[in-house]
Amino acid sequence: MSSGLEVEATVCATLPPPMKKASLKKLQSSPIRARPVTEEILSDSLKTVLQIERNVVGGGGEMPIDDGDDSRVDPRVKINRGIVLGKNMHESSLEIREPEMDDEVTGEMDAHMAAVLARYRKTLVERTKFHLGYPYNLDFDYGALSQLQRFSINNLGDPFIESNYGVHSRQFEVGVLNWFARLWELEKDEYWGYITNCGTEGNLHGILVGREVLPDGILYASRDSHYSVFKAARMYRMEAVKVDTLISGEIDCTDLQRKLTEGRDKPAILNVNIGTTVKGAVDDLDTILKILKDVGYTEDRFYIHVDGALFGLMMPFVKKAPKVTFKKPIGSVSVSGHKFIGCPMPCGVLITRMKHINALSRNVEYLASRDATIMGSRNGHAPIFLWYTLNRKGYRGFQKEVQHCIRNAHYLNDRLRKVNFGVLLNELSSTVVFERPEDEAFVHKWQLACQGKIAHVIVMPSVTVEKLDLFVEGLIEARKHSFADGNVIVPCIAEEIGHQNCACSLHRYGLLTTPLKNATQIGSHENQLTFK
Amino acid sequence: MSSGLEVEATVCATLPPPMKKASLKKLQSSPIRARPVTEEILSDSLKTVLQIERNVVGGGGEMPIDDGDDSRVDPRVKINRGIVLGKNMHESSLEIREPEMDDEVTGEMDAHMAAVLARYRKTLVERTKFHLGYPYNLDFDYGALSQLQRFSINNLGDPFIESNYGVHSRQFEVGVLNWFARLWELEKDEYWGYITNCGTEGNLHGILVGREVLPDGILYASRDSHYSVFKAARMYRMEAVKVDTLISGEIDCTDLQRKLTEGRDKPAILNVNIGTTVKGAVDDLDTILKILKDVGYTEDRFYIHVDGALFGLMMPFVKKAPKVTFKKPIGSVSVSGHKFIGCPMPCGVLITRMKHINALSRNVEYLASRDATIMGSRNGHAPIFLWYTLNRKGYRGFQKEVQHCIRNAHYLNDRLRKVNFGVLLNELSSTVVFERPEDEAFVHKWQLACQGKIAHVIVMPSVTVEKLDLFVEGLIEARKHSFADGNVIVPCIAEEIGHQNCACSLHRYGLLTTPLKNATQIGSHENQLTFK
Repeated sequence: MSSGLEVEATVCATLPPPMKKASLKKLQSSPIRARPVTEEILSDSLKTVLQIERNVVGGGGEMPIDDGDDSRVDPRVKINRGIVLGKNMHESSLEIREPEMDDEVTGEMDAHMAAVLARYRKTLVERTKFHLGYPYNLDFDYGALSQLQRFSINNLGDPFIESNYGVHSRQFEVGVLNWFARLWELEKDEYWGYITNCGTEGNLHGILVGREVLPDGILYASRDSHYSVFKAARMYRMEAVKVDTLISGEIDCTDLQRKLTEGRDKPAILNVNIGTTVKGAVDDLDTILKILKDVGYTEDRFYIHVDGALFGLMMPFVKKAPKVTFKKPIGSVSVSGHKFIGCPMPCGVLITRMKHINALSRNVEYLASRDATIMGSRNGHAPIFLWYTLNRKGYRGFQKEVQHCIRNAHYLNDRLRKVNFGVLLNELSSTVVFERPEDEAFVHKWQLACQGKIAHVIVMPSVTVEKLDLFVEGLIEARKHSFADGNVIVPCIAEEIGHQNCACSLHRYGLLTTPLKNATQIGSHENQLTFK
Repeated sequence: MSSGLEVEATVCATLPPPMKKASLKKLQSSPIRARPVTEEILSDSLKTVLQIERNVVGGGGEMPIDDGDDSRVDPRVKINRGIVLGKNMHESSLEIREPEMDDEVTGEMDAHMAAVLARYRKTLVERTKFHLGYPYNLDFDYGALSQLQRFSINNLGDPFIESNYGVHSRQFEVGVLNWFARLWELEKDEYWGYITNCGTEGNLHGILVGREVLPDGILYASRDSHYSVFKAARMYRMEAVKVDTLISGEIDCTDLQRKLTEGRDKPAILNVNIGTTVKGAVDDLDTILKILKDVGYTEDRFYIHVDGALFGLMMPFVKKAPKVTFKKPIGSVSVSGHKFIGCPMPCGVLITRMKHINALSRNVEYLASRDATIMGSRNGHAPIFLWYTLNRKGYRGFQKEVQHCIRNAHYLNDRLRKVNFGVLLNELSSTVVFERPEDEAFVHKWQLACQGKIAHVIVMPSVTVEKLDLFVEGLIEARKHSFADGNVIVPCIAEEIGHQNCACSLHRYGLLTTPLKNATQIGSHENQLTFK
């Protein structure tokens, strides 16, 4: 085989030519490259916007206003806003430059990269400072771990099965998993789990286990579930049923009962949300379990995956919260690691029952191994970050931070109400929902996640009262500026947050009118009254 | 909603008690905790092994000898080796400890963690030094990027669609993607891609796109394909056909043609390997395309995903190698970023045709957004690592490193032949396959990936001649020690690597006997002759 090999490998003659210094310099001298990187992208993006309608179906031009985490859109909401054209990223991308022969002498490449990185770092500092819309705790200090960045740490495959690759961090990973299994009350020898790359991987895994346990099961999930839940159904070719939600964002148990009754010939795989993406709503697990029993689903005919992306880790520290525990007949729980805990890169934790994984492994004969993680190679740094923070903060530290978040969320809620903003804050949540600002520059500055007519702030440990004050003042200003004459018209968002939370002239927090019988009857009455 | 909220969050009364310092101290004083971390795990693991048979089906005890990356096992191979019991990781895991009230004063927690990390770092240095079995380039210096570790960088969703979350690195990601699109000859406005978490995600994506483009397509992939390919088929509920391989590990085109002919009523989705996991074999893309044409598959009735995990980035720099290019009718290419390039954490690159993604987006109406990545939140650090190395090394740097790897692979191949080891080195590869050492401690030391009767060394840029010399000397010693009297019996691995590469007494590199007509006729003749 190897005898005839031509050892002298050379660049293939037809290899496309790399970008040369000359063309790079041209790029650099253009105004686009001369200015700081990230800010540039933002302002440039705004120049190249397309006007599209959200609910065009099959038009091929659908793109999200928001990010992947918040792309659930109520099909009834018809809006017309500026959408960032996807491909504009090419304009602001940092092209790879082929090094010149003399780069090592001149140091030009090093200088170029150092300059790019310095500018980039500056924008990261700025962007980190003004951030309220995403559930990421940006307040962490992993300086003690920077010594590990030079290692290629890979926990490939199963956390509990040693690979021959020695540069791993399984001892940290299993320590973290044990902590979570204890938090959710599953014995060491009865659980299996792993540290995932993000909340989506946890959901993909939980739902896959559900499908393997109940191959003809129907997936039930509320409309407010994270989009990865329905993505899973499509990927896995599962029948999926969307269940209505209450205005709070919670699953509508009446609708769930009806749909479970309709589908009772087949087993049920349920996604239960502990903190929905947009409104931070918590589905009522106990009522769901009761419904399953009432409709006639025995425990071998349903599987529950609990999506606790953000709040799965906060709820154990909230007194009135219902309990997420494996003492109830649930199959798996997932939570994100980069959200409440905080981590330089996305990660998550998935805990399930060992018996399900054993069943899964038996099914997958042709793999000839227990291949139970979705990814093969797995980031070995993430477990160390989590291990570090769990040790430093402990139960007591998290408890304090949860208190801080909920207090500050109430502070924001109260402040916004005082200045006539419609606002929703669910009881078990630190997600504050309010009217979507018209001022896109303001939305960008504070990095608000928006959906239809609403936006939200998620109060994380890194959010202080001072930051919230600054935000509210800016928000008031932004609203004023959206009206040419300064006469603010408060938009009606009763349909999204309920009439008792809506500040529009018709509802005024439910004080002016009697409760609406049917939310869909709400018409456009935004122009009836104004206030300053 | 929020009016009745009890702001005073307290730890739930029934929260399971965290581990206290007392019990931790007990743990720490036990011999298991007192010694260095990683080494400990390895030696402890070896104490708790189970004897299982590889081909027990449905026994529930199947676990891999190897790692997730190398778990393809020929069902004909019946072996009986010590398997690491999965759950032993609990014994050596680093438990999370609840901080004491006085920790901030005493500094004990910080001291504890610093000690754990210092020991861990030491073992990482050691394990990085002795490593030959996995295709990871461990030779990188990202010191210039350590300043970015304090930021939560998240490229959530599509790389080309701006999220409102500002702490991202899309400008780096798109720069890297442009580089790869140029390498594989796809125009900027015709490609779509993203930076994945690992090679598996690339394969999962490529095959998913194939299935969405051709919903009733049958997946064809060789037996030597990465296990994630068949995992995808199972996840996605696709019909999958395993195609035989030649001894080199390449797909058997005769068998492929037969199977494509049998299945021609349905479209074909093919996985083509550019460097298989175990033998580094390259499937013959041009012949595969010819077969498709001959059998009657028009271009709208097949989809090819190219799995270039390791070699997809090396092959463009090997003169005789066939070309991976989108000028041929392929649908997607994936490659790992932590392999040839080197990266602290796993990552990869996936490039596909824009038209497929547009079709995908149109299909996924209910998502109301272009949700084309598998993961939602995505590691924003990985693109910067890749961007940094691509800039520093460029085409010329990679070319030199590929030459270095192939030269050193030949060096190892020649040295092993000289000391009577059966050895296989494919023409376009730096993967050297040889007999699996009996000495498990040696396998662990060098972190060899093993499968059945063979093991391999993958020569990466971080592998020097000196390291290979050290390895060969150790291997000779290890072989000697495996035989009580020092009389070495060379095992027959002709079935795995071909008679002309087998050093056993019967084959002696094909010099002693005529070629075998049927590889399965090879009997056990290992005991006929010995040599020292």
